[in-house]
Amino acid sequence: MAKFMDVHEGMVGVTPEQFSAAHDADLAIEGDERVHFEHAWLDPASGMAWCISEGPSREAIMRIHERAGHPTNQVYPINAEVG
Amino acid sequence: MAKFMDVHEGMVGVTPEQFSAAHDADLAIEGDERVHFEHAWLDPASGMAWCISEGPSREAIMRIHERAGHPTNQVYPINAEVG
Repeated sequence: MAKFMDVHEGMVGVTPEQFSAAHDADLAIEGDERVHFEHAWLDPASGMAWCISEGPSREAIMRIHERAGHPTNQVYPINAEVG
Repeated sequence: MAKFMDVHEGMVGVTPEQFSAAHDADLAIEGDERVHFEHAWLDPASGMAWCISEGPSREAIMRIHERAGHPTNQVYPINAEVG
């Protein structure tokens, strides 16, 4: 398994409740691709969101996000982390 | 205190050891601005890195990163997080 950071744009004005619901939609189906979405962060002013996950490939991450209704092709493999 | 995600570009080929040293350079001076850098992730292929922190303002985050040698003006306030 590898770790990935994905980046979403266009989430301007999304509320914490909507963001949590979007994350829950990922969690509900992530097992289909042996993916796990660990943590996500939102800035509703810029519309940017970030999500850290584990999974077998970036394509697996992309498929789950697309099925859950928030597709992105900005999925980066993480080779180092600190903290 | 607020939470922030900052984004760095141009870190192509940075090693895990170099990335850890860069983070340590932040930690060594973060107290000057009442900032704390919690976690950071690196993709050395794209040169992208992300860092989650707490602090009084985005300007405080930016000042520490600049003094530590890796300036960025991409510092986003986080209003919601899940996971």
